[in-house]
Amino acid sequence: MAPGAKKGILERLDAGEIVIGDGGFVFALEKRGYVKAGPWTPEAASEHPEAVRQLHREFLRAGSDVMQTFTFYASDDKLQNRGNQTTHSGQKINEDACDLAREVANEGHALVAGGVSQTPSYLSCKSEDEVKGIFKKQLDVFINKKVDFLIAEYFEHVEEAEWAVQVLKTTGMPVAATLCIGPEGDLNGVSPGECAVRLVKAGAQIVGVNCHFDPEHCVKTVKLMKEGVEKAGLKAHYMTQPLAYHTPDCGCQGFIDLPEFPFGLEPRILTRWDMQKYAREAYNAGIRYIGGCCGFEPYHIRALSEELATERGFLPPGSDKHGLWGSGLEMHTKPWVRARARRDYWEKLRPASGRPYCASQSFPDNWGVTKGHADLMQQKEATSKEQMKAVFEKADKCDKAH
Amino acid sequence: MAPGAKKGILERLDAGEIVIGDGGFVFALEKRGYVKAGPWTPEAASEHPEAVRQLHREFLRAGSDVMQTFTFYASDDKLQNRGNQTTHSGQKINEDACDLAREVANEGHALVAGGVSQTPSYLSCKSEDEVKGIFKKQLDVFINKKVDFLIAEYFEHVEEAEWAVQVLKTTGMPVAATLCIGPEGDLNGVSPGECAVRLVKAGAQIVGVNCHFDPEHCVKTVKLMKEGVEKAGLKAHYMTQPLAYHTPDCGCQGFIDLPEFPFGLEPRILTRWDMQKYAREAYNAGIRYIGGCCGFEPYHIRALSEELATERGFLPPGSDKHGLWGSGLEMHTKPWVRARARRDYWEKLRPASGRPYCASQSFPDNWGVTKGHADLMQQKEATSKEQMKAVFEKADKCDKAH
Amino acid sequence: MAPGAKKGILERLDAGEIVIGDGGFVFALEKRGYVKAGPWTPEAASEHPEAVRQLHREFLRAGSDVMQTFTFYASDDKLQNRGNQTTHSGQKINEDACDLAREVANEGHALVAGGVSQTPSYLSCKSEDEVKGIFKKQLDVFINKKVDFLIAEYFEHVEEAEWAVQVLKTTGMPVAATLCIGPEGDLNGVSPGECAVRLVKAGAQIVGVNCHFDPEHCVKTVKLMKEGVEKAGLKAHYMTQPLAYHTPDCGCQGFIDLPEFPFGLEPRILTRWDMQKYAREAYNAGIRYIGGCCGFEPYHIRALSEELATERGFLPPGSDKHGLWGSGLEMHTKPWVRARARRDYWEKLRPASGRPYCASQSFPDNWGVTKGHADLMQQKEATSKEQMKAVFEKADKCDKAH
Amino acid sequence: MAPGAKKGILERLDAGEIVIGDGGFVFALEKRGYVKAGPWTPEAASEHPEAVRQLHREFLRAGSDVMQTFTFYASDDKLQNRGNQTTHSGQKINEDACDLAREVANEGHALVAGGVSQTPSYLSCKSEDEVKGIFKKQLDVFINKKVDFLIAEYFEHVEEAEWAVQVLKTTGMPVAATLCIGPEGDLNGVSPGECAVRLVKAGAQIVGVNCHFDPEHCVKTVKLMKEGVEKAGLKAHYMTQPLAYHTPDCGCQGFIDLPEFPFGLEPRILTRWDMQKYAREAYNAGIRYIGGCCGFEPYHIRALSEELATERGFLPPGSDKHGLWGSGLEMHTKPWVRARARRDYWEKLRPASGRPYCASQSFPDNWGVTKGHADLMQQKEATSKEQMKAVFEKADKCDKAH
Repeated sequence: MAPGAKKGILERLDAGEIVIGDGGFVFALEKRGYVKAGPWTPEAASEHPEAVRQLHREFLRAGSDVMQTFTFYASDDKLQNRGNQTTHSGQKINEDACDLAREVANEGHALVAGGVSQTPSYLSCKSEDEVKGIFKKQLDVFINKKVDFLIAEYFEHVEEAEWAVQVLKTTGMPVAATLCIGPEGDLNGVSPGECAVRLVKAGAQIVGVNCHFDPEHCVKTVKLMKEGVEKAGLKAHYMTQPLAYHTPDCGCQGFIDLPEFPFGLEPRILTRWDMQKYAREAYNAGIRYIGGCCGFEPYHIRALSEELATERGFLPPGSDKHGLWGSGLEMHTKPWVRARARRDYWEKLRPASGRPYCASQSFPDNWGVTKGHADLMQQKEATSKEQMKAVFEKADKCDKAH
Repeated sequence: MAPGAKKGILERLDAGEIVIGDGGFVFALEKRGYVKAGPWTPEAASEHPEAVRQLHREFLRAGSDVMQTFTFYASDDKLQNRGNQTTHSGQKINEDACDLAREVANEGHALVAGGVSQTPSYLSCKSEDEVKGIFKKQLDVFINKKVDFLIAEYFEHVEEAEWAVQVLKTTGMPVAATLCIGPEGDLNGVSPGECAVRLVKAGAQIVGVNCHFDPEHCVKTVKLMKEGVEKAGLKAHYMTQPLAYHTPDCGCQGFIDLPEFPFGLEPRILTRWDMQKYAREAYNAGIRYIGGCCGFEPYHIRALSEELATERGFLPPGSDKHGLWGSGLEMHTKPWVRARARRDYWEKLRPASGRPYCASQSFPDNWGVTKGHADLMQQKEATSKEQMKAVFEKADKCDKAH
Repeated sequence: MAPGAKKGILERLDAGEIVIGDGGFVFALEKRGYVKAGPWTPEAASEHPEAVRQLHREFLRAGSDVMQTFTFYASDDKLQNRGNQTTHSGQKINEDACDLAREVANEGHALVAGGVSQTPSYLSCKSEDEVKGIFKKQLDVFINKKVDFLIAEYFEHVEEAEWAVQVLKTTGMPVAATLCIGPEGDLNGVSPGECAVRLVKAGAQIVGVNCHFDPEHCVKTVKLMKEGVEKAGLKAHYMTQPLAYHTPDCGCQGFIDLPEFPFGLEPRILTRWDMQKYAREAYNAGIRYIGGCCGFEPYHIRALSEELATERGFLPPGSDKHGLWGSGLEMHTKPWVRARARRDYWEKLRPASGRPYCASQSFPDNWGVTKGHADLMQQKEATSKEQMKAVFEKADKCDKAH
Repeated sequence: MAPGAKKGILERLDAGEIVIGDGGFVFALEKRGYVKAGPWTPEAASEHPEAVRQLHREFLRAGSDVMQTFTFYASDDKLQNRGNQTTHSGQKINEDACDLAREVANEGHALVAGGVSQTPSYLSCKSEDEVKGIFKKQLDVFINKKVDFLIAEYFEHVEEAEWAVQVLKTTGMPVAATLCIGPEGDLNGVSPGECAVRLVKAGAQIVGVNCHFDPEHCVKTVKLMKEGVEKAGLKAHYMTQPLAYHTPDCGCQGFIDLPEFPFGLEPRILTRWDMQKYAREAYNAGIRYIGGCCGFEPYHIRALSEELATERGFLPPGSDKHGLWGSGLEMHTKPWVRARARRDYWEKLRPASGRPYCASQSFPDNWGVTKGHADLMQQKEATSKEQMKAVFEKADKCDKAH
């Protein structure tokens, strides 16, 4: 099917349709061996296209209506930050990512969304023009590759997100904008309601949050955004793409501050049943673009599709390999496992951690620094030994506080 | 490189080399949307070869020296159990699985192992000849496709494993045999030591355990096997392919009995650091074939490879996307995350579950039935409503016990 | 020493002295076998004076500056509620309680405080006059027995507390008033700040909270009270008498709603080190009357006295049996226990529950009913079988909600 | 009633009666402010007789059939260990303790048991004669004061317990002997079965365990003792006096090794329902002398009496203040608490800890030293600063191990 034949994102949302997003690529591909934790950059789009293509396909099978280009942190200033080495140019990575997303999108009815995200330049206090120039470079590729719409995602400061939206709007394409904030607001304390109003005023038709918090926090935050937008007499569509990790103990910077980030988050991973609960709550809150971010695997997205199958009128292809509410267990060898083939069982289950020597919550780090603080200046060079020593010392000091 | 040019499995082990296994395919592909929980059958080898191929590749990148054919539960009696529907014949699935394993193995230095596993026929008290006939059918494909060696894995009863080994031995190829048992022994109470002796006597050159228990339990069980074999004056190589789930609370049937099986196991997933600990303990126990089973993702296998990199003399390809002991975090944007770029931090971390309403351990089901019990008779037909009602009632009764 | 020779409560507080309160009698004596959980009435003052006297003495040794008369729930309408049977008249119980408090107070420098608490009559919507009449009856005894000051404590509705204060004020004695509320305010949603202002305006010189929440919640609530009072341009002294149970999971009605109330609270009991933290935080918040309520044992009160020993200039008598910060362990037989004789060890300890099958938090009941609701009408007669059936049914229904 | 008129301990047990013991005095009185943690000596018998008397009375009301003299660690070598200061002589303390026990015993039908426990002299490798001489001194008081029978309790080494029994047997009085060991046996690895046989052969008519482990471990250990005794063709009565703390994570030295010992054990305290379970399991195991040790409060003993009320034919006096299985809650003000007035509710409750930042299990210290090791030599002098420094260093080193 020609891409042009597909209904656009705004047509779908305006018609009241539910749009299922995809999951976060950097975390999923890190576990598969194609992304490096630390820089979190997407050079795999050029280096290992088969791995990226396969992940797109799995999300498509799971019911994703949108293939986001794997261009997270694919701005030049991030690709070359702190000694990160990529053998391909930023332009090539962005182009290859667009091609992969389009290839798989066309295997189904999905749209392609070109994505930009926050930049080291902003954190390092570069000027508005410089930051906007960075977005513009990625945008040129998206225009060239004819993506279907644009997403500005993963912004901790609403100001930078506004700049991004302003750049993206110049294309005339639909623009979605999501911040990685919780109910307390952005890192400067701007409330979710005010953030949303500012994004809508900057030109975004879809606003919401992604990453940094669990579904419960994210739905709560988007509710606050919606209240803000409505109070201001504005209109928008709403979107959540939360973590697949439980974060009851997070502060305003979300899971980055948790001591388990990023290599010890396993016990926090949501089950598919947690995901169905999330889909329902997001839907009930009036959110219609419902997807995921870091930690999401294809089965998590499928759970969203299954929870909302009645409202959408269909199941995703991947459900041919999944009995709803565990009904596939009727085919299990052991009778006591067959006895788990029922919704009631899985809805009530409170899964144990198998970790009797671990607590259920953590004390997040809380350095209380944001844009402008010396600790946050970015640099092209690898972190030096002296710099590492300094952060270790500061970390040890913070650790003693509780 | 021609497969013939590779060193065989016994040559490697006899030379004292460490062999890194792969991870379990059914769980990994279930999460990706290609395997149905309940039947757990591998028809994806024929239906979605690109997904199976990609998973093989990821394990190869992670350092796996063996590509196991994706033929778990690919016996005809299992493919057609309790209403399971597969559009491809058992023979085709086994053949396609061999081709995929060989294709990827030849992208590196890995060997191909043809695998058989326990059968519904045995549980339903079919005769030795019938059960052996089932193994023979899969074996014919493995011979035809020229696999490098054979694995009889996932047996709950040592008797059935002996039968499998006896069949596999007829080929003259090296044979490995692993039971899915813990320190208490097989489901008839045969001790690990005696099980191992019987498997060696049946002709297995490599013995050990896979699945059903966490690394700690598995290493402990293989230690008991080794003691038994040595006490009997026999010789063998040893192998563990445990779960990637913590199971401190399991009874003799392992994680199948846990209330979280199979859709609520997330909080139990091992971290990469847990895996490094496992690799070290397995190595110290004299185990040289060290791999994984259900729950393992490629990054778990990579952690085994990294822990034993000094002993092996090299890192796996996938480590180009992983800083050892978290050192990649030196490139992280936030300084307090950079402060986590050290071994000491991750070794000491006791990760929180983010689930304050959940316990750390579960009461396993314990129906106390095994081969021969009416509850365990297998059938081709789908489980009927009456049968489901009966198991629900029994489950509710058991549930009241604690 | 004659009681008259002691400095009064206001003289002490006006002089900036710290006043250490006592602990809750009904819970402590329930564990000792003298109070019945359910009615929670203090007939032991007449039935088993030796037990009440001994508990007073233990609190005195622990450093309590106030002996509260054991007259909690000693109003006639509570003594005869729902089939409760007491062989002594309300007047006699109040008189005996005064005598016991005075006897032990005079063994040291403690003051005697006569206490009244909320009434079933208020919950059952009796008139202001009727409710005040009930307070008046207890007050007559306190006047007669010459207590040193008065406390109106454990009120869920600020309105009833105001009535109590108005009655107590008629004596000219100093009056303290504490609500059993948390940061969300009283059961009608009146904020802590407004509650405090109303109590001060009614005539209380000391205001604060007692019972229902853990120290952390209570200190937070009193801070809000203090802010309210200061904002209103008023003046008061502040007081906390929290639970000795951790209640991170409580709703507005506090520990009454926890499923563990009242017979499964053990795992929540605060350690002596938790208590020292509480004393310090209360002190830092400007609270000078610092005591305890349900769950407090004498060693908890002693911990308050020890934490504030420097500020107060002395240790309590009971510290002759307690090495500060565990230093008594230097005399322990085992060397590894001697190694725990240091502040650092106990301050950092996060004690395990020894309950791997239990969660860390509970879902509180939340029936959402308060004064005026039919479910809360009180009655002299024992709860009938039909009434019990009705509450069981409602409870089972509520239980399904999560 | 004259003591002579009471049925003796052996008459009761021979007749198949259940004997309810009392709880541990040192922990209960430490919380009340009369015993110092570290030395754990019972000088309160002389210094604060009213407190000791009151605790005896509370246990009597709770159903205790035995008043143990408060003579734990009242041997001269312990009273003067490591700088401990007591203003009364060992003889006076032992005499006063006997008088108090007798006074309260005669308020009911209880017997008085004179108790000896392990000595620092044994740990310091003093001779058999010296150790026996120490027991003899306490025994002279017991003979003089006409106790009803004798208990040798809290021995970590069966050899020292045998010596104690041999001394006590010289009186012709009935002798009970309990070790503070778990299923792994005494500190030299002597199995529970062999320990029990040796104690019976030494002359004890009642054998069992006390302290150091939770009820589950203790019942298990006494079962092993019973098996040993029966296998040896001997006869005995059996006795358990466990901790009131959950200890699923203990090694062979029990709760002494837990990091929470002795000032952070609160979250492990058993509920009254845990106690009823213990009473039933002990009874089912054939144990007829069922009591408690450290952590027991009077309501815990009452729970034992209530669980076995049908078998015994009566409730204890203290049950006039306790509705069986929570039935007293029918009188509670709040309807949702009235809904908890049922056995089913409390039996199923898994109480939360209210501590989301704490784990459920701990890593016990495990210094692996026992009698004869230099670290365990006892001394009269206070532990010196150098000695304290040495244990701190060793402790820090051990701590790094996990």
